[in-house]
Amino acid sequence: MLKATIDAEIFKETVDVIAAIVTECRLNVSEAGFMTRAVDTANVAMISIELSPEAFSSYTADENVVGLDINKMKNIVSMMGKVDVLSLELPEGGYKMELAFGGYKYSLALLDVATVRKDPNMPTIQLPGKVVISGTELNNAIKAAALVSDKIAFGINPEKGTFYMEADGDTDHINLEIKGSDLKSFTPAEARSLFSLDYLKDMGRVMSRAEEVEIQIGLDHPVKFGFSIAGGNGKVEYLLAPRIEAD
Amino acid sequence: MLKATIDAEIFKETVDVIAAIVTECRLNVSEAGFMTRAVDTANVAMISIELSPEAFSSYTADENVVGLDINKMKNIVSMMGKVDVLSLELPEGGYKMELAFGGYKYSLALLDVATVRKDPNMPTIQLPGKVVISGTELNNAIKAAALVSDKIAFGINPEKGTFYMEADGDTDHINLEIKGSDLKSFTPAEARSLFSLDYLKDMGRVMSRAEEVEIQIGLDHPVKFGFSIAGGNGKVEYLLAPRIEAD
Amino acid sequence: MLKATIDAEIFKETVDVIAAIVTECRLNVSEAGFMTRAVDTANVAMISIELSPEAFSSYTADENVVGLDINKMKNIVSMMGKVDVLSLELPEGGYKMELAFGGYKYSLALLDVATVRKDPNMPTIQLPGKVVISGTELNNAIKAAALVSDKIAFGINPEKGTFYMEADGDTDHINLEIKGSDLKSFTPAEARSLFSLDYLKDMGRVMSRAEEVEIQIGLDHPVKFGFSIAGGNGKVEYLLAPRIEAD
Repeated sequence: MLKATIDAEIFKETVDVIAAIVTECRLNVSEAGFMTRAVDTANVAMISIELSPEAFSSYTADENVVGLDINKMKNIVSMMGKVDVLSLELPEGGYKMELAFGGYKYSLALLDVATVRKDPNMPTIQLPGKVVISGTELNNAIKAAALVSDKIAFGINPEKGTFYMEADGDTDHINLEIKGSDLKSFTPAEARSLFSLDYLKDMGRVMSRAEEVEIQIGLDHPVKFGFSIAGGNGKVEYLLAPRIEAD
Repeated sequence: MLKATIDAEIFKETVDVIAAIVTECRLNVSEAGFMTRAVDTANVAMISIELSPEAFSSYTADENVVGLDINKMKNIVSMMGKVDVLSLELPEGGYKMELAFGGYKYSLALLDVATVRKDPNMPTIQLPGKVVISGTELNNAIKAAALVSDKIAFGINPEKGTFYMEADGDTDHINLEIKGSDLKSFTPAEARSLFSLDYLKDMGRVMSRAEEVEIQIGLDHPVKFGFSIAGGNGKVEYLLAPRIEAD
Repeated sequence: MLKATIDAEIFKETVDVIAAIVTECRLNVSEAGFMTRAVDTANVAMISIELSPEAFSSYTADENVVGLDINKMKNIVSMMGKVDVLSLELPEGGYKMELAFGGYKYSLALLDVATVRKDPNMPTIQLPGKVVISGTELNNAIKAAALVSDKIAFGINPEKGTFYMEADGDTDHINLEIKGSDLKSFTPAEARSLFSLDYLKDMGRVMSRAEEVEIQIGLDHPVKFGFSIAGGNGKVEYLLAPRIEAD
């Protein structure tokens, strides 16, 4: 059972964040709010998102797991006005989610949970380097890298005390180096890993709205991006596997 | 013979209203203004439009029927600036319409009237239910319905005193119900008919600019939309045939 | 050797102006600034552009010729912010140009000058008719002509004291006639030549930003467009060969 109302903008943000990684997911509903953890079909990117009851205007829920078609959700949220309040309802044992906003009632068929990939475990990895920058700056660097290559390296140079993002194309090269003192937070450590821009472009677009993104990196290890949504009442983590660096 | 000047915005609006239904039409020019009545090639949608001499800044005309290529007209109006005054001229017995605006002279070849479909008669039908809503609200409901289906039902529930628009997809369902007291005008009657969204999407885009649209509906009958343009000096009626409801 | 800084907007404008004609070019760098002269692959359109050292915030250069990939340049400038200052550096004998802006360092591989078409000579032609109009007006006329035809005629009617642009389609015709007194400058002479709109559409988009464009025309001769960029510190000339007028 679920009965909740939420600002349409916050719901849109939540759907966008998930849509950057997967087209369908399991949504865990409980007294503690919404929780989703999902990996993309290629097992390269993972999302973990938690939305606390404080992100909602009103919230009552029992424990429940439902299968969501995220593509359909994107279409629905695209037609909500900016100021709309959205009400969500999940009848006990029902196969439909009822979304009501601005006079509209939308009844969305849920996916059979058994057909949706199980929640992955969050791998336990040590990522010693930590950097906090603005989402806009991160997204701009991703877009710039895409001009010369399909891969980007994130790294830290502990001697110089800098964080860098760089991309090497066949002929051209682009590099953005930021001094630790110009970052919102900086924990230097030997770190450099290479990532596919295919995945990062979608993530970057979503993260560009975040005031602060925490980037955790290691040496040829995954990268973890952490940022909050819903005015701090939602927590998102993206995890992206590295690519092997060819020399 | 025709010699007239008109605000470019009003002329654009007129062309858009016709272009939602047909790509060519007969334009009846007379002392009483412009009049066009046309059906689309599939005989499903009809437009009837009248533009009185008051819609023009200046207007002199003899009785005349000319064939217009509406697609071409759309291109021409798209290049007029917002503040332009458009002057229209049709020499006696000429095969060209002269459009002049902002220094430009455009000479448009007319279509041979004999090759353009004759004006249809307006069918006499009784549509007992009447509703007046804003064009924006109507267009939003059409766009929302298009997310789940290719058909939309318009109906009135006399017991509940509500007007509703709803669409049934394979899995999802969307419904907008408006209380009579929330409508600009409401004449309840047993009414429900199903329509193709293909046609309605184009009509909806045009009607979204109208402050008030009168919707007349019946039981498995056509729907009639009435609205005014040109600051009240133009009258438009769209008629759309129903689809058969499959259960 | 080159070491210069320039307002990113001015550099963008410069790249756009060249990109309207060619996809690669030789850039002549010297104490006198930047100079490029290039013809398109079909030998129909030519660009000549000079950017004086005053167009830059700082400028030091030795004589040098480098091959530029203009398409790549367009991508790079598209990712610079509006307020960025761009620094350009060309190491002595290097094969890369270093572009730095907003923390980014972009290293762009230069083209082998031997593979890029040599600078053409500016043909010495007498074009007796001269007209100065706003770039916006010129571009609007080009766009309007494209509605009815793929060619446009520029001409002067010395008897009437007017400059005109006109296009003849299979059925329609469009004409813009401007009195000499309504032009920013007017040197009447017998002149009329026909040009391909394919080329003019790209040029028109670029010229639309110029407050004044000087048009020089003759009788079945090329047209020359002259305008300035970079707040007067850059000079551009486009030359376009005429088409033969079929009657």
